[in-house]
Amino acid sequence: MNSSKVAYIPSGFNACAVKNPKLSLFFSSRPCAAAGVFTKNLVQAAPVMLSRKHIRSGYARAILINSGCANAATGKKGLYDALISAQMLAKDLQVKPHEILLASTGVIGTYLNMKQMSRGISNIVKKIHIYGRQPRCFDKAARSIMTTDTFPKIVNRKLTIPNSSVIIWGCAKGAGMIHPDMATMLSVFLTDAAVMPETAQALLQEAAARSFNKISVDGDTSTNDTVYLLANGGSGGKNISPGRAGFTILKKNLIEMSQELAAMIASDGEGARHLIKLRIEKARNASSAEQIARTVAASPLVKTAIYGGDPNWGRVLAAVGRAGVLVDPDKITIYFGRLKVCHRGHACMFSKSQAKNILRKKEVLIRVILNQGSVETQYLTCDLTEKYIKINAKYTT
Amino acid sequence: MNSSKVAYIPSGFNACAVKNPKLSLFFSSRPCAAAGVFTKNLVQAAPVMLSRKHIRSGYARAILINSGCANAATGKKGLYDALISAQMLAKDLQVKPHEILLASTGVIGTYLNMKQMSRGISNIVKKIHIYGRQPRCFDKAARSIMTTDTFPKIVNRKLTIPNSSVIIWGCAKGAGMIHPDMATMLSVFLTDAAVMPETAQALLQEAAARSFNKISVDGDTSTNDTVYLLANGGSGGKNISPGRAGFTILKKNLIEMSQELAAMIASDGEGARHLIKLRIEKARNASSAEQIARTVAASPLVKTAIYGGDPNWGRVLAAVGRAGVLVDPDKITIYFGRLKVCHRGHACMFSKSQAKNILRKKEVLIRVILNQGSVETQYLTCDLTEKYIKINAKYTT
Repeated sequence: MNSSKVAYIPSGFNACAVKNPKLSLFFSSRPCAAAGVFTKNLVQAAPVMLSRKHIRSGYARAILINSGCANAATGKKGLYDALISAQMLAKDLQVKPHEILLASTGVIGTYLNMKQMSRGISNIVKKIHIYGRQPRCFDKAARSIMTTDTFPKIVNRKLTIPNSSVIIWGCAKGAGMIHPDMATMLSVFLTDAAVMPETAQALLQEAAARSFNKISVDGDTSTNDTVYLLANGGSGGKNISPGRAGFTILKKNLIEMSQELAAMIASDGEGARHLIKLRIEKARNASSAEQIARTVAASPLVKTAIYGGDPNWGRVLAAVGRAGVLVDPDKITIYFGRLKVCHRGHACMFSKSQAKNILRKKEVLIRVILNQGSVETQYLTCDLTEKYIKINAKYTT
Repeated sequence: MNSSKVAYIPSGFNACAVKNPKLSLFFSSRPCAAAGVFTKNLVQAAPVMLSRKHIRSGYARAILINSGCANAATGKKGLYDALISAQMLAKDLQVKPHEILLASTGVIGTYLNMKQMSRGISNIVKKIHIYGRQPRCFDKAARSIMTTDTFPKIVNRKLTIPNSSVIIWGCAKGAGMIHPDMATMLSVFLTDAAVMPETAQALLQEAAARSFNKISVDGDTSTNDTVYLLANGGSGGKNISPGRAGFTILKKNLIEMSQELAAMIASDGEGARHLIKLRIEKARNASSAEQIARTVAASPLVKTAIYGGDPNWGRVLAAVGRAGVLVDPDKITIYFGRLKVCHRGHACMFSKSQAKNILRKKEVLIRVILNQGSVETQYLTCDLTEKYIKINAKYTT
């Protein structure tokens, strides 16, 4: 899967990246309505704790992301390091410390190297003022937040809304420790649309719920997950709020762009060879559909079967049965792509070679039809391969 | 790990195995109090459904286990096949059909080959009457129920209880699809102790709760899990009931033997290189300790770290944080073996080489001290290796 190149830069935003330490900076020359969605893990990284506080005002100017050190499980010193980083950056950018949002990704339980951070911050601020409006800088910033990702994940759209046009640029990282809610994934959306903080927050929450919260790589939710949206009104258009012109367009596009990034993350799952689209259909209600989807999407036996090109639908059925939701196994029908493999709880005749052809494709659709109600949900996951093991057996060392 | 050879055969029991189809039979020449613990998966195999019914009377004479076909997700035909198998066996053994208990392990969604079953049953009955008291037949029966297991799992004890002695023989199979409650694991205990059915059931439930329900290989609970206990009173000793002589001894030994088999299963986890003992200490209550233990034990990131010999305690902490239990991360202390690696939620200095030495051992102890209360629980799991993927990517094909 390829990332789209940056074609449209939202008005008033700059981006930049430096190495050693790996930092990405997103900066708006004007105040932004700021929204954030964070990990639900009770172990929260220092940048998450600090940024939750900063974002309460509803406004921000810049996002700084460091890659390599998660600054999680680092206690008071970690929190202090995050605060100092924000203060240094604020000073250099001539904004207030609480207008800085942070995110970190990397190894848990190690401290930031503050000497490096200090040098990195002063370098990146110099650079962003000189080069930051160039499209390749946005590309670089998206690339710099990668850890085990194999490709940068970027989305970019120009929307025409009544009387004006707005631009949204977004990027994400994440390939492992991926599970609802959100996993070690970071994502940033920048737009020059004019929205109020409450609207930005509502939009972002809905977009995250319908995208990043419906992917699973390995069932491990991280301590650092963060999605940000900065909206600076630089397009010059009118304020967009619920019921007003453009709101539906903005919402629809933000959801779609989030879903595109989420699909890129799932397909780039550590070691993955297949993107698995798992659709739970005719469920009694949304929560039971979610619960079943999560369980099947995290099942190592389902994931290894898809890797092996093996139409072993019994593992899907068994995972549904242990999801902790009341289902009637004798009503469950399962499809791989267009091929029915299980009819109302038991084996049905199907062509093995046809099944293998379906499972050979990069993208595999699994449909589980519960026949209990009318609710449907879709999850994205990936297969489980030897490469996942190789990548994760040696991550800190 | 080696299985112990059979030294003591409980009085009145025979065992036998045949190939093609792979069958194991356990038979008592006298009526037995019978107890069973079954999978909690809502998708239940036909032998589970039938045996649940048969065991209601509290008595049984024989257990027949077939390996290769799970007879799960096989609808009415599967249930009928199970019933016919029980009837054929009952006729040959000259007992009642409801005195037969069944268990199956293998691929889900395939039907039993009833022509083969019929031949197999008549062969195994002939054989059991001739050779069934020989210790090597018990060994063979334990070996015949193996699927991806790399060694047979047998326990065997002679207990001295006031005024008599009793023998317990037990075996188990299971290496994948292993997760509470119970996973694709089958286990059989035979004893010549005299106990009433209620006592047998209570003993078995407690033993299973403290052993098989505290192991996890891959988080996948199977459709076929079964543990049986047959007690035929053949020792000639008095009836053993709660409060009576010998009850405590019997209970203690049954729990220990179950725990030994459970440890064998976890250490034989598909592709496993390490047995991981996970101890959750100072928890608020039993259910929260269990919940945390299950989550950490099923975390692919924790399991791959142990495989890689990587003291990545941050993954343990992150798994605790997403377990859905209210914990205070700043109170959590983590040990690998005797080495403290995380003190009250954050990194502490430790020798990397010492940590690597600890992780190099076949058995690794991880202690998570929550400092919330006084409850402790222990789970067994194993590391996650490339071999698990290889085994499971091609299981049905």
